[in-house]
Formats: sequence, C-alpha cells, structure tokens
Amino acid sequence: MYSLKELQELIHARIEILQTGSEPQNLYEPIQYVLSLGGKRIRPALCLLSYQLFNSNEPDDSIIYPALALEVFHNFTLLHDDVMDNADMRRGMPTVHKKWDTNTAILSGDAMMIKAYQYMAVCPGKFMPEVMKEFNDLALGVCEGQQYDMDFETRNDVSVDEYLEMIRLKTSVLIAGSLKIGAIIGGASERDKGLLYDFGENIGIAFQLQDDYLDTYGDPAVFGKNIGGDIVNNKKTFLLLQAMQMVQGAVKDELEMWLNMTDGDDLEKIEAVRKIYDELGVPALSQALMNDYFERSMKALDEVKADDDLKADLKQFAVNLINRVK
Amino acid sequence: MYSLKELQELIHARIEILQTGSEPQNLYEPIQYVLSLGGKRIRPALCLLSYQLFNSNEPDDSIIYPALALEVFHNFTLLHDDVMDNADMRRGMPTVHKKWDTNTAILSGDAMMIKAYQYMAVCPGKFMPEVMKEFNDLALGVCEGQQYDMDFETRNDVSVDEYLEMIRLKTSVLIAGSLKIGAIIGGASERDKGLLYDFGENIGIAFQLQDDYLDTYGDPAVFGKNIGGDIVNNKKTFLLLQAMQMVQGAVKDELEMWLNMTDGDDLEKIEAVRKIYDELGVPALSQALMNDYFERSMKALDEVKADDDLKADLKQFAVNLINRVK
Repeated sequence: MYSLKELQELIHARIEILQTGSEPQNLYEPIQYVLSLGGKRIRPALCLLSYQLFNSNEPDDSIIYPALALEVFHNFTLLHDDVMDNADMRRGMPTVHKKWDTNTAILSGDAMMIKAYQYMAVCPGKFMPEVMKEFNDLALGVCEGQQYDMDFETRNDVSVDEYLEMIRLKTSVLIAGSLKIGAIIGGASERDKGLLYDFGENIGIAFQLQDDYLDTYGDPAVFGKNIGGDIVNNKKTFLLLQAMQMVQGAVKDELEMWLNMTDGDDLEKIEAVRKIYDELGVPALSQALMNDYFERSMKALDEVKADDDLKADLKQFAVNLINRVK
Repeated sequence: MYSLKELQELIHARIEILQTGSEPQNLYEPIQYVLSLGGKRIRPALCLLSYQLFNSNEPDDSIIYPALALEVFHNFTLLHDDVMDNADMRRGMPTVHKKWDTNTAILSGDAMMIKAYQYMAVCPGKFMPEVMKEFNDLALGVCEGQQYDMDFETRNDVSVDEYLEMIRLKTSVLIAGSLKIGAIIGGASERDKGLLYDFGENIGIAFQLQDDYLDTYGDPAVFGKNIGGDIVNNKKTFLLLQAMQMVQGAVKDELEMWLNMTDGDDLEKIEAVRKIYDELGVPALSQALMNDYFERSMKALDEVKADDDLKADLKQFAVNLINRVK
C-alpha cells in the first residue's frame, strides 16, 4: 500500500526511464522533452490509488503502464493545446512548437497519443474491452471540452450550465476516467467503479471552480502577480458568467464597459469588476457551488466498499484540492 | 463472399450513414466532411477481403467497424498531413484548415484518431489485445514515415535504402496492417496472418515505386498536366535518389545544376533530368525493383492457406496496382 506521494514518486521515476522511441529523433525527442518537464503526475497516481482500494498486489506493469498512459495522454493534450493557444511557455520551459516548430508539435502529439494507447494496452487482456471503452470515452470527452472552450471565446451567450459542462469534459472526465480505469484493473465491482468515476467527476469540477475563484480572490502574496488575470482577459469563468446572468441596470452597463475596454489600467479593471462580483454575491455562490461538488465527491467516495484506511489518501487529496490557496 | 468492388461499395454505404458525433459541431462537422470526400476505400476493403479468406460468415459489425476504423485513421492522417504541408485542396475540395482553420483541423484530427480507436474496439473481445497491438504498431509506423518524409526534404544525403524504409512506413504498414487485422478477426493462423502482412507490405512498396515511376514516365495523355511534377519540385523519389547514387563526373554536375535551378523552364528541366535518368538506366532499375516487390507479394499470397477462388480478388488487386497507367 503506497501513499499518494509515494505513487507520484513511483510515476516520476518510471517516466524518467521511459523510452517512448528513438528514431526518427525529430518525432521522439519532443515527446521525451514534454514528459521530462515534470508536473504533479496526479492522474496516474489517482489511477494507482484507486487500484489499491481493490487489489493488494504490488502494482506491476499491467497497472503501471495504463497509469503512465494517462499521464502521456494528458501531456499530449497540453502539447496540442499549446499549439492551438500559441503558448510560448509550459512549466517554465519553451513549448514544443517554439523549441522545434508547429509541424513537429502536431506530429509528435499524434505519436504521443498512439503511445498512450500502446501503454494502455498493457492492461490485462480480460479487462481490455472495458478499459479501452473508458479510455476512448475520456479521450473524446477531453477533445469535446477543448472545442467548447475554443467556441466560448467568440460567443457572448455562454450560460453557467454550459460552462460547467465544458469544464466537466475538459478537466473532470480525465480525472474520473483515471480513477475508474484503476478500479477496473483492480477488479472493483460495477458499483464501485461508478462511484470512483463520480468521485473524480465531482472533485474535478470543484477543482476548476476553485481555480477560477483563486484567480480573482486568491491571496496575492501567495498567488503572485497573476492575480486577476482572468478579469483582465475577460475569461469566461464561473465568476464572470454567473455575474452576467445576474447583473441588471446601471451595474450591467458598467460591467459591459469594463469588458469592452481595450486599453486601460489593469489593476483598476480588476478592482472594479471584483467589486461588481462582490455586490452580486458571486464569490459566495462560487464557494457554495464548489462545496456542493466537493460534498458530492465525498459522498461517492464514502459509499465505495473499501477500507477507510485505504480511502484516506483519496479523501485527503480531495480536501487538499479544495483547501489549497494557490 | 463479396468481391473487392462490392466491399468498396459496402464501405462507401456505411461511411455515408456513419455518425461520428454531433456536438460540438465545430469538432464533428469537419470529420463528417473529410469522410464524405470519397476515395477508393481500399484499406477497409482489403481488411474485409482478408477476413473473408478465413471466415465465411456474413461480415457483421465486429469486422465492419474495425475496417471502418482503418479508413477513419487513414483520413485522419490526410487531415493532419494537409495541415503540415499547408495543402489547399484534397480530392478536389478545400482542406479542413482552409474551410475552417488550423486549430479546428488539429483538434478534429485528434478526435478522428480517437474515433478510429473506438471503431477498432468493436472487434471481438478475444481478439482485442492482438488487434490493438497491430493497430498501435501501424499507427506509430505511419507517424514515423511522415516524420522521415519531412526530414528528407531538408537532407541531401538520403539513400535509396532510407527512402524504401520511409515509404514502407508511410504507405505499406497501413495496407499490411489492414490485411493482418482482417486475418486476425477472421481467425487465421499465425503463419497466414504473417503472410498477409508480407503481401501488403510488399505490394505497398511496389505501389509507391510505380507511383514515382508514373509521375516521370507515365503517358501524358492519361496522366495529364502533372507529369514531371516530382522532377520540377526536386522531390526525393526513388528515381532521383537512385540517379544521385550512380551519377558521376560531368553528368553529376549537370544534374546538380538542374536541382539548384530556381527559375527556368519546367519542361526543359523535366526533359533534361529524364534524359539523365535514361542514360543511367534508372527507369529499368525502378521497374525491376517494383517487379521484385510485386513478386514477393505474390509469393506471400500464394502461400496463404485459403481457396484460390477467395484469393483471386487480392491477386487481381495487386496486378491492377502494378499495371495501372495513372
């Protein structure tokens, strides 16, 4: 039985020695580069935690490779997202399309997705149809979420419900699917597999809501210079969409003025928009909704038929996500 | 027992009613668009022909969906290749990144690859580990071939052997894998699966060599205005690479002069380079090598333990590939 931290370290170590391929170098070097940039390795660690709930065997390649597949897939989505967003940096280093070029980033990303499928296919044969279905579903969900996210940028009528569905697809289904795949390979019951999926789906949405909240209401001393970045960029977060659904009259005109302003003082804009959010009670609504999703995730985890000792790390993970300040 | 032509029509009909997804529209419409552009549906048809060698059951979804997966995967590679080559047209219609934009083409392509995996996973569970291994291998091979092809554009020391390996990866492994997957799901023996792979691998290389040959030596009346396009573009085909390996002295200088010429008469260049090829005996070498691969493919097919009647269409397919004039 390994702790979350131990599992993260195990995945770190395995990724360091992972050889995705050698020739042609221009295909495989970017993959090794992306995987070497680090990250918390949360998805594979959750997959292994979930597996451990139902299986006390020392994790071998038939669960470790599927866990690695989830990390490789996650990093593939970051690689292609960075191309689409034309992002220069990722984890403090140049993105692949900056360090190499766009074509390299596209093709290496494609190969990376195939490598993820190769690693997933190391799962025991008897679980393969179920594991593949789950992996295909989560992979397609992430693409759908990314498309909605891009669509939202040019739309002015995005509802809060649409936003919640977008973050469910873009963030939660990969976390939920990682937990479920661990449960499948661990030999869990149908009910427990579903409960772990629900746990992940709800905690994923809670996580994103908290992320939105902290970008505007985080402690500047901890969160640093990026505080208010969402407001400056008119990013359609829960806070903004909720405010737009509630705001009326003169305050509505004022909010729209700030949204349409292209040159002005960023700090002034952050201050003013945050004041509008405060007056509408948006931060409290955000925290209430986040707590709601958090409670649902806890309820699902509680119902999983496994030792409380074994579930403790998953519970702590969820609590830490919500209590984090940066 | 269906003929190649009947199977191509069956695939056409199934693709016409195939619903890859609906929402978000910007993700799924480009996929439907690409699949609607047509094509000969050769890879799924070969998969089904191979299946029929070993299984007389009416083809059901457990073989038709994997066959469709091969066509969807093939069209995904065309979609991303068109982005990388910045191509404007595909099958006489605007490419996805022209009709929509580059981000749409990247993300729809990603979703298309996942759809291919979804369809492949409809295969019978007992064959899934073997089918997935084959599909992963061919998919990665195609990416490697595409990378070598891009690398070759900026290299001046590409050998004929490297070229043959590139076209094996870029063209043949998908054809070979399609035949092998059909054989796996049909229930073929290990030996027959391997022989069908060899048949496809060799006929794929023969096909590409013939393609190179016809671009320079095809009948202009049939091949049309594009004759000599490879020479104009200094494309590193078998003909050019073979010539570069053999050419010496003054003729070498002449060939290099033509390769370095950036503005001049295209027809004059085609005529002159073709004359150099002729003098070096390159066309005869090309035809001999193509025939060599063709013979190897025929030998592999002959050794497959199946009725000659059933093998006739595969044989005819290979003969037609080699005898085509355009």
